[in-house]
Amino acid sequence: MEYVKDILWTPGISLQDTVKALGSVGFQSVELRRAVEVVVRMRKEGAKVFLTFTSNMATSGLRGLFAQLIELGLVHAVVTTVGSVEEDIMKAHGERFLVGSFHSDDVELHEKGMNRVGNLMITNESYARFEDLLLPMLSKLYGRKARWSSVELLRELGLMLKDERSILFQAARKGVPVFCPAITDGAMGFHLYLFQQKHPDFVVDVVQDFKELITWTSHDDKKGLVALGGGVSKHHAILAALLTGGLDYALYLSTARYTSGSMSGATTQEAKSWGKIKDDADAVTINGEASVFFPLIALSALEQLHEEGLL
Amino acid sequence: MEYVKDILWTPGISLQDTVKALGSVGFQSVELRRAVEVVVRMRKEGAKVFLTFTSNMATSGLRGLFAQLIELGLVHAVVTTVGSVEEDIMKAHGERFLVGSFHSDDVELHEKGMNRVGNLMITNESYARFEDLLLPMLSKLYGRKARWSSVELLRELGLMLKDERSILFQAARKGVPVFCPAITDGAMGFHLYLFQQKHPDFVVDVVQDFKELITWTSHDDKKGLVALGGGVSKHHAILAALLTGGLDYALYLSTARYTSGSMSGATTQEAKSWGKIKDDADAVTINGEASVFFPLIALSALEQLHEEGLL
Amino acid sequence: MEYVKDILWTPGISLQDTVKALGSVGFQSVELRRAVEVVVRMRKEGAKVFLTFTSNMATSGLRGLFAQLIELGLVHAVVTTVGSVEEDIMKAHGERFLVGSFHSDDVELHEKGMNRVGNLMITNESYARFEDLLLPMLSKLYGRKARWSSVELLRELGLMLKDERSILFQAARKGVPVFCPAITDGAMGFHLYLFQQKHPDFVVDVVQDFKELITWTSHDDKKGLVALGGGVSKHHAILAALLTGGLDYALYLSTARYTSGSMSGATTQEAKSWGKIKDDADAVTINGEASVFFPLIALSALEQLHEEGLL
Amino acid sequence: MEYVKDILWTPGISLQDTVKALGSVGFQSVELRRAVEVVVRMRKEGAKVFLTFTSNMATSGLRGLFAQLIELGLVHAVVTTVGSVEEDIMKAHGERFLVGSFHSDDVELHEKGMNRVGNLMITNESYARFEDLLLPMLSKLYGRKARWSSVELLRELGLMLKDERSILFQAARKGVPVFCPAITDGAMGFHLYLFQQKHPDFVVDVVQDFKELITWTSHDDKKGLVALGGGVSKHHAILAALLTGGLDYALYLSTARYTSGSMSGATTQEAKSWGKIKDDADAVTINGEASVFFPLIALSALEQLHEEGLL
Repeated sequence: MEYVKDILWTPGISLQDTVKALGSVGFQSVELRRAVEVVVRMRKEGAKVFLTFTSNMATSGLRGLFAQLIELGLVHAVVTTVGSVEEDIMKAHGERFLVGSFHSDDVELHEKGMNRVGNLMITNESYARFEDLLLPMLSKLYGRKARWSSVELLRELGLMLKDERSILFQAARKGVPVFCPAITDGAMGFHLYLFQQKHPDFVVDVVQDFKELITWTSHDDKKGLVALGGGVSKHHAILAALLTGGLDYALYLSTARYTSGSMSGATTQEAKSWGKIKDDADAVTINGEASVFFPLIALSALEQLHEEGLL
Repeated sequence: MEYVKDILWTPGISLQDTVKALGSVGFQSVELRRAVEVVVRMRKEGAKVFLTFTSNMATSGLRGLFAQLIELGLVHAVVTTVGSVEEDIMKAHGERFLVGSFHSDDVELHEKGMNRVGNLMITNESYARFEDLLLPMLSKLYGRKARWSSVELLRELGLMLKDERSILFQAARKGVPVFCPAITDGAMGFHLYLFQQKHPDFVVDVVQDFKELITWTSHDDKKGLVALGGGVSKHHAILAALLTGGLDYALYLSTARYTSGSMSGATTQEAKSWGKIKDDADAVTINGEASVFFPLIALSALEQLHEEGLL
Repeated sequence: MEYVKDILWTPGISLQDTVKALGSVGFQSVELRRAVEVVVRMRKEGAKVFLTFTSNMATSGLRGLFAQLIELGLVHAVVTTVGSVEEDIMKAHGERFLVGSFHSDDVELHEKGMNRVGNLMITNESYARFEDLLLPMLSKLYGRKARWSSVELLRELGLMLKDERSILFQAARKGVPVFCPAITDGAMGFHLYLFQQKHPDFVVDVVQDFKELITWTSHDDKKGLVALGGGVSKHHAILAALLTGGLDYALYLSTARYTSGSMSGATTQEAKSWGKIKDDADAVTINGEASVFFPLIALSALEQLHEEGLL
Repeated sequence: MEYVKDILWTPGISLQDTVKALGSVGFQSVELRRAVEVVVRMRKEGAKVFLTFTSNMATSGLRGLFAQLIELGLVHAVVTTVGSVEEDIMKAHGERFLVGSFHSDDVELHEKGMNRVGNLMITNESYARFEDLLLPMLSKLYGRKARWSSVELLRELGLMLKDERSILFQAARKGVPVFCPAITDGAMGFHLYLFQQKHPDFVVDVVQDFKELITWTSHDDKKGLVALGGGVSKHHAILAALLTGGLDYALYLSTARYTSGSMSGATTQEAKSWGKIKDDADAVTINGEASVFFPLIALSALEQLHEEGLL
């Protein structure tokens, strides 16, 4: 049995020592420490790891951390929504997003052409320049063939980016598939539509993505999932897990709660009834916000793997 | 200025009187009453109304209510996830889901072939029979053509159902488009994939859906949105709204909170910075769970419209 | 096994039929129906019932409903915070609170002397008049003796009110003790302090309240708890329950979640580890906001008891 | 204007650098950094600081951190619930609490005499030994006088503890008042009651605490509040602030939300309508769980003050 221990400040304290101390504090801090352990174990056991996140996280400064994790070989497949794809491309081309306030005057922001995402902001100009970027990319790809799975499309877009901090770029470089099951649900969808109007045989074949979804890992592999937030990103990964024998490791990190019966708030426990997570899996559900919890978990896991020579 | 008033029990009290009284109680009950007013106003002003919901709501007994609202002409477009489509088809073929507990033994449920969705359950058999149902439907449609937009596909599937309480059936009957931007994110995706393996030219052209998305209503129409829960369903509707000039009426009902910066928790206020909702729109954000709040709002709005001869 | 059933609108639907239908919808609506059943059972089994609530609920229009439940003999002891006491007295003297917005300009409200409680407002004048009311009451009571338990004090204040919709008045009339363990935590505390400055022997003996807390019901009685919200009100009731053998029936209704380890968010399950709730008790935890959920539960339970001739 | 910046791992990263980087990530991480700044500013401006917390936090390993902050002179008054007092005394006498799971079998725990607080546990033995500890302490104090304010009582109890990590001990040593407005709401209340049964003139005069509450700081002092969680602890501090001219600095850290109109979930914004927080105050509301957020804030603020030679 483990005891509650006081967390105390000592000058120059490292992140690693802080997270270790949090592990004996109580409540979500204990789950945070368990999450670090699960992530470390995924690496040690050679699990194939799915990382899923919602597009507000790509809006935030988590984007570079996701890219770093892919670059370091800790992530083997990604699922996200198309907002992430759009903003990753924008950022790779130098667009900068602003830090603001949750309590802005939104009518005033609208007049200024500032689009609010919580306490962050994206300008209309960033979206306008995205359009200018995307069309030549699509033309180039269409020059090669007319029918693309979304995984292929995102891989080719990634290769065009050349930004070390880009999720798509690092994923493409490392052979990590990026799944985006609702690829039309954003500005990109509209641009794809306009492109198709001119080139009627242009098709994004989302059904074809299933091939990669069920073969990027095998039944025999140990499989892990780090699901940040909920929505289609989380669901798609657990669907894939279900089709390939269930997860051995899982970390769910979300502010959603189980009480509404939504998949977004569903716990790792509920997933076991479906076989999405194996009965004896190493699974942690954290109730917390990703912008704070995930960097703590990721940096602390990287630190530990680095210390043990496993990076 | 309006005053707080006590809510009191009187024998035989109607739902309508209860909801009216709730309107002067305080906190979310006040917002609930405002939500009823917005829904009633959408009808009175002839707005074109988007209804969006997550698939757990189709698992629940809200499914028949959604179908009833479509049948009564209160909903003009639907966005949902593919889980809703699957379960609507299952239910239309007689599958029944079970009421259980949030605190089940999930390993035991797994052994029994019971898949838990909060405090509801779906059996493995229901999924197995769904597969048997879907394939002949797909074959029939493929016999007509190989390339389908998902709106077309769902319309045809709906027409095959013949169940008054089916969302897809009522939508098809009433010419209401059902958008499902992540149509492969579920068992259906897997079945579409297996079908495509046999018929390689079979394509679900999700890009093509945009045509219907931006033309089902015009810039000149008054536009309304009832978004239940978040995720891709909510986002797709506000994306459509943004492309067609912004919403005049909006009701967001969700348990998600704005503090994580997620679109699911974003308020109607945040949407104004984007132009998704017009600056002067009639908009209500309710923090609450749809299985309780939505029936109260919908039944009370129907009651009022019925009393005023507007149904 | 029970099946999920669709909820449908029928013209003139009663509250009772709505709540019954909600019981087969899923998620919190199912728990709502279970809550009604527990409340009805408390009555049928002759349980002694604790009702606890936070002061924002007395600010709201739930106040009259609480008084009505006491009047009808469904509640046998109350625990609340002193804000409830203050506002119950204000309202009994004709003060009216306002319905406003969660998104007010609070600096502007401050200038206008409006104090915001969520989307409700209390004016400075109401507080000023409360002071004028309270002092003569205290003088009168001090004329009788100098040392008062808070239960005694609130009983005497209640008897002075003569308002059918007053919680304190109905409680005093029916011999229902009102516990207020933090009786100084509000404007009343400050007035008690000023009074004590003039009359140094005046004492509110909170320790003495324990006598009533552990004798208002016996070990042999069946005991029930309806805890609305959390805080000291909820905790004090479960403390009393622990000291008298544990609860047979419990309904926890709160928006707080268990994940922070707080007592406010603790479930009825956690309470069993302490013996606060008996192992085999009939207990329901609802995640929801009291202003909507509690009227539904209370009115529906009253309706059922009325139909069965049990009121 | 500030830009969103990626957070990246570098080997050996300090807590301080992590928290700085979090400040440009987005969502609650940005608010976290702002919270550190407010806490640092309170110190630099010589503000008198109120720290409030709920008793589950004293159960956890935050207890020693609270004591350390008092010892370092960063906290000038404390408000908490009596559970904190009880557990601080227990721990000062060597009782150890256990780390467990949120998903325990509570009936089994009950049989084993383990009382669950989220994912922590306290044994029945710890409570039994607390009783044995408390009675001689009370006897000793009663030997000096019969009527005690709760602030006086807790100060004397603190002086008897001699544990560097005890909140009560450090507070007593540093002349920091500990307010506990609901001092009877726990095991201690029951023991005070039993003691009073034997010594009828023994009184805990909670009204008398107001003297210290409104004089521990003056209208002229700059005033700050760090409110962790909600409940009577938070409310009592803002009541004191209201009576002494309002707060200049405030940090609210809680998982409660504003939507229920509860004081626990009320934002720093709402507090301005009351004058509890000054219109131009430096105020931050964080939506997060204290066991993770507070150590990050406190350790990071201490680190910065240490670097600047301000500790």
